[in-house]
Amino acid sequence: MASLVQLITVDCPKPSLQDNTGDIDRLKKNVTEKCGGPLVVPHGAMARVAKAFRQAGFAGSAVVNDHGSHFELVDFLGKKPDILPAVALDLGTTHLEASLLDLLTGDVLAQANIANGQIEYGTDILTRIHFAATDTGLQTLQQGVISCINILFEQLSTGADISPCDLRALAVSGNTTMVHFLLQIDPATLCREPYIPLVNSPDICHGRDLGLAMDGWAPVWIMPSVGSYFGGDLISGIIASGLDDRAGIAMLIDVGTNAEVVLGNGEWLIACAGAAGPALEGGIAKMGMRAGPGAIDKVRIDPGMGQVSYETLGGGRPVGICGSGIIDLVAALYLARIIDVRGKFQRKFGGDRLIDGPDGPAFVVAPAREAAGNQPVTFTQVDLDAMMRSKAAMYSILTTLIAQVGLEFTDLEQIFVAGSFGKHIDPRQAITLGMMPDLPLHVFNPIGNSSLAGAEEVLRSRQSRERCLALPGKITYLELNVNQEFMIRFSGCRFIPHTDPSLFPSVPVFSD
Amino acid sequence: MASLVQLITVDCPKPSLQDNTGDIDRLKKNVTEKCGGPLVVPHGAMARVAKAFRQAGFAGSAVVNDHGSHFELVDFLGKKPDILPAVALDLGTTHLEASLLDLLTGDVLAQANIANGQIEYGTDILTRIHFAATDTGLQTLQQGVISCINILFEQLSTGADISPCDLRALAVSGNTTMVHFLLQIDPATLCREPYIPLVNSPDICHGRDLGLAMDGWAPVWIMPSVGSYFGGDLISGIIASGLDDRAGIAMLIDVGTNAEVVLGNGEWLIACAGAAGPALEGGIAKMGMRAGPGAIDKVRIDPGMGQVSYETLGGGRPVGICGSGIIDLVAALYLARIIDVRGKFQRKFGGDRLIDGPDGPAFVVAPAREAAGNQPVTFTQVDLDAMMRSKAAMYSILTTLIAQVGLEFTDLEQIFVAGSFGKHIDPRQAITLGMMPDLPLHVFNPIGNSSLAGAEEVLRSRQSRERCLALPGKITYLELNVNQEFMIRFSGCRFIPHTDPSLFPSVPVFSD
Repeated sequence: MASLVQLITVDCPKPSLQDNTGDIDRLKKNVTEKCGGPLVVPHGAMARVAKAFRQAGFAGSAVVNDHGSHFELVDFLGKKPDILPAVALDLGTTHLEASLLDLLTGDVLAQANIANGQIEYGTDILTRIHFAATDTGLQTLQQGVISCINILFEQLSTGADISPCDLRALAVSGNTTMVHFLLQIDPATLCREPYIPLVNSPDICHGRDLGLAMDGWAPVWIMPSVGSYFGGDLISGIIASGLDDRAGIAMLIDVGTNAEVVLGNGEWLIACAGAAGPALEGGIAKMGMRAGPGAIDKVRIDPGMGQVSYETLGGGRPVGICGSGIIDLVAALYLARIIDVRGKFQRKFGGDRLIDGPDGPAFVVAPAREAAGNQPVTFTQVDLDAMMRSKAAMYSILTTLIAQVGLEFTDLEQIFVAGSFGKHIDPRQAITLGMMPDLPLHVFNPIGNSSLAGAEEVLRSRQSRERCLALPGKITYLELNVNQEFMIRFSGCRFIPHTDPSLFPSVPVFSD
Repeated sequence: MASLVQLITVDCPKPSLQDNTGDIDRLKKNVTEKCGGPLVVPHGAMARVAKAFRQAGFAGSAVVNDHGSHFELVDFLGKKPDILPAVALDLGTTHLEASLLDLLTGDVLAQANIANGQIEYGTDILTRIHFAATDTGLQTLQQGVISCINILFEQLSTGADISPCDLRALAVSGNTTMVHFLLQIDPATLCREPYIPLVNSPDICHGRDLGLAMDGWAPVWIMPSVGSYFGGDLISGIIASGLDDRAGIAMLIDVGTNAEVVLGNGEWLIACAGAAGPALEGGIAKMGMRAGPGAIDKVRIDPGMGQVSYETLGGGRPVGICGSGIIDLVAALYLARIIDVRGKFQRKFGGDRLIDGPDGPAFVVAPAREAAGNQPVTFTQVDLDAMMRSKAAMYSILTTLIAQVGLEFTDLEQIFVAGSFGKHIDPRQAITLGMMPDLPLHVFNPIGNSSLAGAEEVLRSRQSRERCLALPGKITYLELNVNQEFMIRFSGCRFIPHTDPSLFPSVPVFSD
């Protein structure tokens, strides 16, 4: 396995007049024999290593960071600890999710999450990139995210009855821009053609370099990215799904701020990304919200009677509607003919749920009397239009990608759907909308937060770290921003399920 | 050659939509191909590297540090500079000597020296070790020496019309304790049996780690030591003399605060060190001084008439007497029979130069009327006794070492004598005193400041750095502090030239 930080047990001969080498040299010699690679002791860690080594009577556990090309001895523990704690982090634009891992066993001990404190400086990434160009903007953004990570460290540590200073490693998986903010490096070229990151694959740095409240010599592993629009979170997804390790062809779909898609197997990988995300994440609809307590995540409309039923996460009164709820809702609206193939409300089928709001027609998902704070949960034509664009973008991305390699959707053994999007959506409804290809349901495989899972994996295993570092070189990236085919396909996808209904044989088509 | 810091010239393809890898990744890929080893960009240097690389249009010279196990890219220069300046430093207990080197050519551009600012906290190393144990003692000592180095940087830079920030590397060669002070690591165990350094062979650190006023990412190479009493200055001596690279057997003698001696050839090396130094460096005699302006460095006494003649360094009026002057003086006193075989003044041969001072008998080397400030330069019985101990220690060290390997002095092809001691002494007089073996004079080879020369050499060549790192493992160190034979020999050496005059056939023996 070989975790990112390892304990190397040594019991060194005691110094004597006959064996009078230096303490650090003595320790290095013994640890190097066990590591099997070049070993350095950084200047700033030398004093504490030597002191602990001597106090422990020259026997105990050396704390060794694996830098790939070399090892780094950063601490010494007289008594072997019960756990060697490290944190895996999914560094999202809106949310941060973290796991506390024990590197000795690889077990996840706890999880925590927090809203990204950078939201104060811009909800979307582009606003933040512009903010970063202001005087102390970049520094402010970095401190914003570091504060959040430090809060997560505190929470995870308290729960496990350790101190944040005991945290020995951090692995971060995030989109390319978030990584730039974290490292406090200029993101300006990310959003201008030809969309060049300052770095895709940064080398390991230390907790102290970033102001993290953990052991100062803890290595910080950043999951490499492939380009501006293809971040380390998706590399994590590939690792977590094993897409790069299969004989059969599979697809990975990760919907975050962007929709990012990878297609391939152990032999080849092709990827692209596009702006299909926000509506699907519940980020655009007026009453949209992240999947969380009070979010409507399931909606049924009886096609005959027009009766609406829904479920909320946590079972309480509805507050808003999350991405999977929106997909459920729009599919149900279509099947009940309340919207037409173009995604426009049809007054004649709408009944009294269809009202005229300040922004035009709107569908009442939960009336005021049922909803939290007596605020009805509604879904407007504006929301619907955004949703239609998102679903069109999504299917266009998938078809452009599969056509690029001369394959068809039926060639896919698996479609891994990552994130809370994958966890909550019903593939049946996504197919009804023409967002996902019309394949047997067992092909769709939700894999949860694969960004976090990938970060956990690199903490555990050197093989995974090497796999990650090699991946960007193996992936062909298809740039959609300049892809003509994509634009043509996009127009064809702005119907439910599609301009060409033969692509979706399982979806009923209504003639008005 | 491969200097410690190298300029790697690249002309990278410009980024485009078709080639949209990150700036740092682009640069690393191109530099790695030319380095042929793993390459990292440290977090703290990434922003400046990326900025300079982009500003230079993706072509220019990468500044790359060679860490042995891997390379480190720390800066980028759009225009290839005329010189790549670095500093070699001989970090002495009393004096620091430095050279400014151009890493592009290996040429020495300038030299400078300064008294060690730590003297304020103790003239001898033991006092400083005790001072280091006080509250902020170690920190004070470090800052003391760092200030001196920064002054040298300033001097060397001003002379070469560059800024200290342009200095790209530092190589330091010093005794083990001085290295501990420089790195601000606890020297406490150095002076207590079994005399264990905290570290012999520290890894490369950076200018910024030590507070040096140079480029923050300049690598600081510390010459490895073998033990408490065998420092990096002597490893430098071995490199500079080529002792480890010869077929024939040779000896290296370096007299600093201690006398350090290495014996061997390309096959084997044995070394020892002992406290023979201070008197020979001019450090103990009441009127003793370092070799410098006003120091008497040559003395002749006409054996018949008792007439005294001397020379001073710089030719001015005498201020004191340096090590080589003392050896000249004592040899002359012996040959003029003013001292006897035991090193005691003989009133009957002393004439009016032999006076009674407050500390007992004293010899007037330069009378008041000739001396600077009208202060006569005298040499007392106390000074003489110290000198006798030193010379006895020196010869005991040499004989113990040569006997240890079953050789005789006549097996030596060369005796390299390092430092200002080697530069100034007359081997003939050293033989007369029984300090050096009675060998043909051509065997003695003064090699100047080999501590500095070794530091220059590791700046220039990777092969030399690898040689230095391997040397401590090749050297057998003979600990004299617990060596019975040494103590027995020491007693036999407290006569001029020796208890057994047959060892010194070229030296006259007088019978009273």
